[in-house]
Amino acid sequence: MKLLRIGEPGRERPAVLVDGRARDVSGVVRDFDAAFFTEGGLAALRDAIDGDLAAFPEAGDDQRIGPPVARPGQVWCVGVNYRDHAAESSLEVPGEPLIFGKAANTVVGPNDDVRIPPGSVKTDWEVELGVVIGRRARYLSDDEDPLDYVAGVTISNDISEREWQLEHAGQWIKGKSFETFNPLGPWLVTLDEAGELGSLTLELDLNGAPQQRGTTADMVFGVAEIVRYLSRFAVLEPGDLINTGTPAGVGLGMDPQRYLRAGDVVDLRITGLGAQHQRLVPPSSNTKE
Amino acid sequence: MKLLRIGEPGRERPAVLVDGRARDVSGVVRDFDAAFFTEGGLAALRDAIDGDLAAFPEAGDDQRIGPPVARPGQVWCVGVNYRDHAAESSLEVPGEPLIFGKAANTVVGPNDDVRIPPGSVKTDWEVELGVVIGRRARYLSDDEDPLDYVAGVTISNDISEREWQLEHAGQWIKGKSFETFNPLGPWLVTLDEAGELGSLTLELDLNGAPQQRGTTADMVFGVAEIVRYLSRFAVLEPGDLINTGTPAGVGLGMDPQRYLRAGDVVDLRITGLGAQHQRLVPPSSNTKE
Repeated sequence: MKLLRIGEPGRERPAVLVDGRARDVSGVVRDFDAAFFTEGGLAALRDAIDGDLAAFPEAGDDQRIGPPVARPGQVWCVGVNYRDHAAESSLEVPGEPLIFGKAANTVVGPNDDVRIPPGSVKTDWEVELGVVIGRRARYLSDDEDPLDYVAGVTISNDISEREWQLEHAGQWIKGKSFETFNPLGPWLVTLDEAGELGSLTLELDLNGAPQQRGTTADMVFGVAEIVRYLSRFAVLEPGDLINTGTPAGVGLGMDPQRYLRAGDVVDLRITGLGAQHQRLVPPSSNTKE
Repeated sequence: MKLLRIGEPGRERPAVLVDGRARDVSGVVRDFDAAFFTEGGLAALRDAIDGDLAAFPEAGDDQRIGPPVARPGQVWCVGVNYRDHAAESSLEVPGEPLIFGKAANTVVGPNDDVRIPPGSVKTDWEVELGVVIGRRARYLSDDEDPLDYVAGVTISNDISEREWQLEHAGQWIKGKSFETFNPLGPWLVTLDEAGELGSLTLELDLNGAPQQRGTTADMVFGVAEIVRYLSRFAVLEPGDLINTGTPAGVGLGMDPQRYLRAGDVVDLRITGLGAQHQRLVPPSSNTKE
């Protein structure tokens, strides 16, 4: 299945994509959130729509697409997880997954505007395979299949402010947590429809020009390995998001470096997972919003 | 006011402490969560109970106390924020707040058991002043008072597994995110009753022997400064928790180092904020729970 959420921010309705059309399933599902996954919602939804798609109303094409899961409980990120990105960053390939955090309220829809923080001159892009947890995962053993704990995959743009990430004291979370910094979607694609996770193509264009051209075959740690590893020191909850790392071609890795400015547009694609399109905008001056 | 939550995990009821007795206010408040703070719940609760406390039933003394806020959306931590702790860690006092993340599902009640991770030999304690956000805080300006965005303060034990924090690749979040690693409470004390935030005494005993004896007067960055700083790169939401750093006396800083073992007990106190008592237990072998 391809799950998506349609409507204005905070009022999205759950839908399923079939033959290129979004069918509104809010009649049988409240939302794609932690409770949905915890309570076996994926299987129930599959049963509910099976063979009877015409019974569900079509969602209009002109409506906003939200993130495909309601606010994750936690966003986990894997750093330096593509060999070509390690090379461009002059970083060693890590011997175990390099994990950092990102505020979970950064998640927005796949085509929402991205706000450049006030004064920022180093806002960067990162196309990533996003993994959404479907079952509570705790201390997974070597003989369990971590993919049994995954609800599906999607496109994630792990936007990063490099000054706050690298030039302020301490840890990377600062540069990763600004508002609107995690466009997600358009669809959550269940694993039976996502194809081979180890051979997906990731692409990102800036103003129509190719910047990132990667493949998950270049990942240092694959999806299963990452999920198992995270479960060794944290309890993963349904709805949690894992950003699994970005391939080469980010602004930080260029010579000279190139960063995002208001008016830029970025387009992201991953094989079988659809596309994102974002416009970069100035920060809102209304601090009360 | 002193807010607390009483009952079994996931089924806690909101209460208010008055004259040493907990009064159940579940008749007027659903829970102390993000919605409660967002919708002006603190002021409404104050009005509701004003002068009429006898109308609320007493909560039994023998019941479990939960964390004083329902699951935070985000847990922010400040590292190396006490001068004496910087000294014992041989770390420089940072020039700006050193921020790291911690999984939000680590939060448990103040007297709940703390589980030592499987194989861990470096599980450590950290008594901290915990700050709970009461209003959405975004890009606070210099002429706003960050304390207007704080709902209250409480005791937080920022339990840390030092091998995963410091000896694995990457960032500190790994060693901070194990299940049960953030005992919180017993009370959320509103600022009008919390006293001078810059002169609170923090204490932690291990098996009855004093380990940490600190004062918030020794903080490098105070509560207001931390809230303002965080709002510069993240949107703080009602119910979010900030662990503001620990004073000297952690196991990592000793010579030889001393870490927690199953059977140990720790007691924590902060002036005016009550006390915590935790027993260290072996990891549960039931990975399905």
